[in-house]
Amino acid sequence: MLSAAERSIPDGRPAIDLYGLVRELFPINRSLTGEGVRRTLTILSRHVPLEVTAVPTGTAVLDWHVPMEWKIRSGTIATLDGYRLVDFAAHNLHVVGYSKPVHAVVSRAELAQHVHTLPDQPDLIPYRTGYFADDWGFCLSHKLWLTMTDEYYRVDIDSELFPGALTYGELFLPGETPEEALVTCHICHPSLANDNLSGIAVATALAMRQSCRPRRLGFRFLFLPATIGAITWLAFNASRLNRIKHGLVLTCVGDAGPFHYKQSRSGAIIDQAVAHVLRHSGDQYEIMPFNPYGYDERQFCSPAFDLPMGCLMRSVHGTFPEYHTSADNPDFVKPEALDQSYAVVASVLDLLDANRTYVRTDGRGEPQLGRRGLYRAIAGQKEAGGASQMELLWVLNLADGKYSLLEMADRAEIPFRRIQKAVQLALDAELIREVVRD
Amino acid sequence: MLSAAERSIPDGRPAIDLYGLVRELFPINRSLTGEGVRRTLTILSRHVPLEVTAVPTGTAVLDWHVPMEWKIRSGTIATLDGYRLVDFAAHNLHVVGYSKPVHAVVSRAELAQHVHTLPDQPDLIPYRTGYFADDWGFCLSHKLWLTMTDEYYRVDIDSELFPGALTYGELFLPGETPEEALVTCHICHPSLANDNLSGIAVATALAMRQSCRPRRLGFRFLFLPATIGAITWLAFNASRLNRIKHGLVLTCVGDAGPFHYKQSRSGAIIDQAVAHVLRHSGDQYEIMPFNPYGYDERQFCSPAFDLPMGCLMRSVHGTFPEYHTSADNPDFVKPEALDQSYAVVASVLDLLDANRTYVRTDGRGEPQLGRRGLYRAIAGQKEAGGASQMELLWVLNLADGKYSLLEMADRAEIPFRRIQKAVQLALDAELIREVVRD
Amino acid sequence: MLSAAERSIPDGRPAIDLYGLVRELFPINRSLTGEGVRRTLTILSRHVPLEVTAVPTGTAVLDWHVPMEWKIRSGTIATLDGYRLVDFAAHNLHVVGYSKPVHAVVSRAELAQHVHTLPDQPDLIPYRTGYFADDWGFCLSHKLWLTMTDEYYRVDIDSELFPGALTYGELFLPGETPEEALVTCHICHPSLANDNLSGIAVATALAMRQSCRPRRLGFRFLFLPATIGAITWLAFNASRLNRIKHGLVLTCVGDAGPFHYKQSRSGAIIDQAVAHVLRHSGDQYEIMPFNPYGYDERQFCSPAFDLPMGCLMRSVHGTFPEYHTSADNPDFVKPEALDQSYAVVASVLDLLDANRTYVRTDGRGEPQLGRRGLYRAIAGQKEAGGASQMELLWVLNLADGKYSLLEMADRAEIPFRRIQKAVQLALDAELIREVVRD
Repeated sequence: MLSAAERSIPDGRPAIDLYGLVRELFPINRSLTGEGVRRTLTILSRHVPLEVTAVPTGTAVLDWHVPMEWKIRSGTIATLDGYRLVDFAAHNLHVVGYSKPVHAVVSRAELAQHVHTLPDQPDLIPYRTGYFADDWGFCLSHKLWLTMTDEYYRVDIDSELFPGALTYGELFLPGETPEEALVTCHICHPSLANDNLSGIAVATALAMRQSCRPRRLGFRFLFLPATIGAITWLAFNASRLNRIKHGLVLTCVGDAGPFHYKQSRSGAIIDQAVAHVLRHSGDQYEIMPFNPYGYDERQFCSPAFDLPMGCLMRSVHGTFPEYHTSADNPDFVKPEALDQSYAVVASVLDLLDANRTYVRTDGRGEPQLGRRGLYRAIAGQKEAGGASQMELLWVLNLADGKYSLLEMADRAEIPFRRIQKAVQLALDAELIREVVRD
Repeated sequence: MLSAAERSIPDGRPAIDLYGLVRELFPINRSLTGEGVRRTLTILSRHVPLEVTAVPTGTAVLDWHVPMEWKIRSGTIATLDGYRLVDFAAHNLHVVGYSKPVHAVVSRAELAQHVHTLPDQPDLIPYRTGYFADDWGFCLSHKLWLTMTDEYYRVDIDSELFPGALTYGELFLPGETPEEALVTCHICHPSLANDNLSGIAVATALAMRQSCRPRRLGFRFLFLPATIGAITWLAFNASRLNRIKHGLVLTCVGDAGPFHYKQSRSGAIIDQAVAHVLRHSGDQYEIMPFNPYGYDERQFCSPAFDLPMGCLMRSVHGTFPEYHTSADNPDFVKPEALDQSYAVVASVLDLLDANRTYVRTDGRGEPQLGRRGLYRAIAGQKEAGGASQMELLWVLNLADGKYSLLEMADRAEIPFRRIQKAVQLALDAELIREVVRD
Repeated sequence: MLSAAERSIPDGRPAIDLYGLVRELFPINRSLTGEGVRRTLTILSRHVPLEVTAVPTGTAVLDWHVPMEWKIRSGTIATLDGYRLVDFAAHNLHVVGYSKPVHAVVSRAELAQHVHTLPDQPDLIPYRTGYFADDWGFCLSHKLWLTMTDEYYRVDIDSELFPGALTYGELFLPGETPEEALVTCHICHPSLANDNLSGIAVATALAMRQSCRPRRLGFRFLFLPATIGAITWLAFNASRLNRIKHGLVLTCVGDAGPFHYKQSRSGAIIDQAVAHVLRHSGDQYEIMPFNPYGYDERQFCSPAFDLPMGCLMRSVHGTFPEYHTSADNPDFVKPEALDQSYAVVASVLDLLDANRTYVRTDGRGEPQLGRRGLYRAIAGQKEAGGASQMELLWVLNLADGKYSLLEMADRAEIPFRRIQKAVQLALDAELIREVVRD
C-alpha cells in the first residue's frame, strides 16, 4: 500500500456530490433524442455553462442521418379485464426504446414476439432499444412473464416518432495553447446508473474543476448521445480535430470494480498518462488493448480520424451481470468509487497539462547543488513528500530537450507529481528551462 | 481444441495420394545427379508439367562447378567363397554416394576404413555420401559388421563418374502480378522417405493445386538437388530474384511430429504467415529462429540474396533417430501427416495470395451497417462460420491503407479466413476498396 | 559450468600483484586534493607512465570551481587529563575529510554535534567528508562513543585549507584509429579498499596490458578525484569527447560478490559488450539500468555529454555493510576477485578493439568450403576450442557489411572469441573482407 504522499491522486475532491447527481438523473427517461436528453443537459447546466446544440432530424452527418425524435407518454400491458401487469410509469426500461405506437389486443403468442426477458436473471428487466426497427416491444422480468398465461392481452404504447432534433452538450475551456484534451461521455441511456450516469457525473465535476484552474491545454467536454451523437459532433468539427492531442471516453466509472483502461487505436500519450497514474495510484487496474467495439472511441478512432483517444472504465460493459438491466441502478454505484474515478481522471488531466519538456541551462556535468542550497532544500522536504535528491538528479540528467516529464517519470519509475516537485526546484534555481519539442 | 469452423486449414484435400507417391518414389536410387533424379522428375511430370533443366558437368555456378555425374550398377561385399553379405541391390543405402569403382580383395582392417555403421542403432543402415571424396565405401548395420570376422573380403563396386549433367525440375505458375511465392524441396536423397520424399510429394500436390486456382501471385515450385542444385538455379536466375516476395523450403513433412517452422534470415511476411496459420490450426508447432545450417534456405538466405525464405518441417533434421538411416522409410511417414502438412502449406499460400491492403471508402466514423443489411447478414452467418460483427468492425477500423489483411488478422487475433469473409462483406457493400501499399 | 575453452575470459593474468597494490595504497590518507592523491599517483607511475595534471584551486570548471587543498597533520580527542581516545594517526577515517583546524575543550554535548558513529555497526568507524562544510568532525566506533561519558574533552585537529591544486593522472595509448575507449576510476577515498583501491589496481594493470598490445582503438585511462576530478577533466577535454566510443567506470571490483554492470544512459556498444562477456564468462552477474546516482558516470552521462559509458562493479555501493566504513579494508578484498575482474574487463577491451564488420567477398550462396580445405580445418580444431563448422557458417551468413562481430556473436549465441576464430579462417581463405560501417 502506498502512503498518501506517494499516491499520485490529488487530494482535491469533486465540487459537487457525484452520487447525488447520479440519483437526480436516474429517473429521467433518456433516449437518443428527445426530452430526456434535454432535461439531463438542463440539470448539468446548473453546474457548468454547457453550450447545447440541437441538430434537426434528417441532417446528413457522415454516413448517417440524424434520426426522428422519439416521445413516449405511456406504455402498458394489461389483462383484458384491465389489470396493468407492465407499466412504463413504473420503470422506464419497460418499453423498448423507439417503440412505435400500438393499441391492440394480441394473443400471448403474438405478444411473445414483442417481449424481452432475461431467463438467466429472472428478477431483472432488460434494457433494449430498436432505434431503426419500426417495431414496438416491452421488457419485463422473466418471473413476471412466466405468470402471464392468459390467451390475450391488451397492449398500449402511446409514443410518437416525429421530425425533431438530436441534442448534445459541450463545454470548451480554452488554454494557453491551441492544443486540446477531450473528455466525452454518453447521455442517451434511460434509467441506468453505472452506464452511464457515472460518466456524466464525473465528467461534469471535472469540467467544473478544470474551469477553475490555469490551463496550458484547452479542455473540451462533450455530453453526447452514443454513436449518432459522436458522429454528428465529428461531422461538424472536422476542421478542428487536429487540435485534439489527448482524448478520454468516460463510462461505467461508478461501480466498485477495479479500473480498466482501453488504449487508443494507434498508441498515444494518453495511454502512457493513464497507465502512469493508475500504476502509481495504489488502485487495482488493468490495461486493455484497443478494439473496435465499446463506446464512442469507435467513432473517434475510426481510421480517417484515428484520434488519440482511450476509454476509462471500472467494470467493463458486457462483463458485469447488472449491465443493461434494471439492476444497474443507484444501488450498484458507490459514492466512493465515483470520487476515486474523479480523482484518477483529475490526475490524468493535470499530468497532461503539465507534461512539458525541459533542457538543462548548461547540461555539462552535474551542477553544484550545494552552493544553490539544493542539498538543504532536498533534505528538508524529503519526509514531507517533496523531491528527494534522487528525483532532482533524474530531472537534471534527463532534461535534455527530448524527454517529456512523463517520459522522465516513467524511466525513473517515480510518480509524476514528485518529478514535478523536482522540476520546480530546478526551475527556481535556473538549472533547467522549458523547450518546445516538435 | 478448435472447432472445424475455427481452424484456418481449408477443407480441400490433395488431388493425389501423397503417401502413394512417397512409396512409388522410395525405391529409386537418387543422388546429386544421374538417373535417379531424372526418373523422379519424370514421375512427378505425370502430375505437373515440370520444366526440366540439365546443366552440364563443369559449368561454373557461383563459387561452385556442376559435378560429374555418378552411375552405379552394383555394389557388394562378399566372402572369399562368394557369399554376398552386403548388396546394393538389396538396399541402395549400402553404397556410399559417389563411390568410385573398386574390385579388390581387402583385409578386414582395410575394409573397416571404408565401412560405416551405427553402433548405437545396430540394426540400421546409415546414409552416407562422399560427393567430392574420390573414395569408395559401404554402409551396413552394425549387427552385421560384428558378424564379419573373416580376414579378407571381396569388394566390388561397379560405378562410373563421368561428365554428364545436373538436373532439376521447375514449374512456374504466373499470377496477375510479377510478384512470386517460391516453394522448394530437395530431390537428391536415395531411399529416404521423410527426408525428403515427403517434401517432394507435398510440393507436387501443392503445384497441382495452385495451377487450378486464380492467382494474384505467381507461384514457382523447384525440385532441386540439395545445395548444388539450389546454387545452380540461383546462378541462372539472379536477375529474377527480386520478384520473390515469399519463399518456403519443404522438408521432413511426413512424420507424425509437431510442426517446426524455421524463420527467414531477416524477417519476412512468410514468417508471419506461417506463424498465423499454425497458431490458428490447432496443431502443435514450434517457431525456430533462423540459423545458417539446414536445407537450401542456406543458399537462398546467403547474404547477397537474403531472400524472404523460411523452412517448414515436422520433426527437425538430425533430431529424430530415423534421420539419415534405413529407418527413414515409408513406415516412418504417415498418410495423415502428409495431408495435414499439405493443408497447412495450402493455407499459407492462400493467405499470401489474398494478403491485400484495403482502405475505407470513407473512413470517418463507423458506417451505418443497418441500412446496408449488414447487421442481418452478420447475424445470419455467425453460426455458419461466417464473419461476426466483431470481425467486420475490425476490418472497418483497420482498413486505413496501412494494414495488410494478415496484420489485421494478427492484431485482431482472428483467423485470416474469417477476416477475409468480413472483407468480402465490406467490399460487397462498397465500404472498403483495395489499395496498393508501397 | 562452462569449460575453459568456452569461457570468454582470456587466460592472461595481470602483470602486477593486484592485491599487493591494494595493500600498498591502503594506508595513504587520500582526499579530493593533496598529498594522498599525489603519493597514490606516484606509486601508480612506477607501473604506467601517467601524465599527472595539477589544476590550481579556484579554476572554473563547468559549474564548479577547483576547491582548496586540504592538509591534515594530526587529529585527536583526549580526556582532560591527556589520554588520547581517538587519534587520526591510528586510523585516517577518524577525522572528517576537509575538517578545519580546531583546538578546544568542548562539552560532551558540543562534541556530539561533531561526532559520527554507526549505532547499527558499533565496532566500525564510518567514512565521512565535508568538502564544502566549513566545519570539523570526528568518526569513531559507536562502542567507543558509548564509553565516553566525561563532561568535557579536549579536541585538536591540526589541518590546513589553502590554495593548492587538484591532481589527476591520465594515460593515453593511441590506436590505429582516432576512436577511443575510456576507463576511469576514482582516487579520492582514504583507507577504503574495495571503494576504490580495487578499481585503481585493476585499471592500472589494464593500462599496462593495453600498452603492450597492438590497438585498433586508442585506450585512455583516467585516475580522478570523484566528481570534481571528472568535471575538471571534462571541462579541459570537451573538444575531444566525440572520440570516446566506449567508456567504463571501474569501482568496487575487489570483493567476492557477483558482477553488477550498470548500463549507459542512452544505450551503447559497451552495454552489449559487457553483457556478452559476462554472459559467456560463467560468472554470476546482474545488469542494472542506468540511474543518475553512483560514480563518475554521473558526469560523463550528463545530458550535454551523454557519453557511452557504463559502470562495472561487483557489490554495489551502498548495498554491502562494509561500504564507507573501516570494514572496507584489505580483508574485504579478495586477490582472486581482483584477478577475475581484471580478466573480465580485459575481455571487454579485447572485444571492443576487435569488433569489426566484414562482408563476404562474394555473398551469393555458400562458398565451397571443401576445396579450400575448410572442412578439414574445422574438424581438426573443433576439440581444441577452435571454430566449428557452425561458427564458420554463421560468419559466412552474417558477413553482409551490416553485422559487427559482436552482433554476429550475440545473434548466433556464440562467444565472441570463437566467432573471431571463424572470422580468421574466413579471412585467410579470402571469403570475407573488412568494411567500414558508418
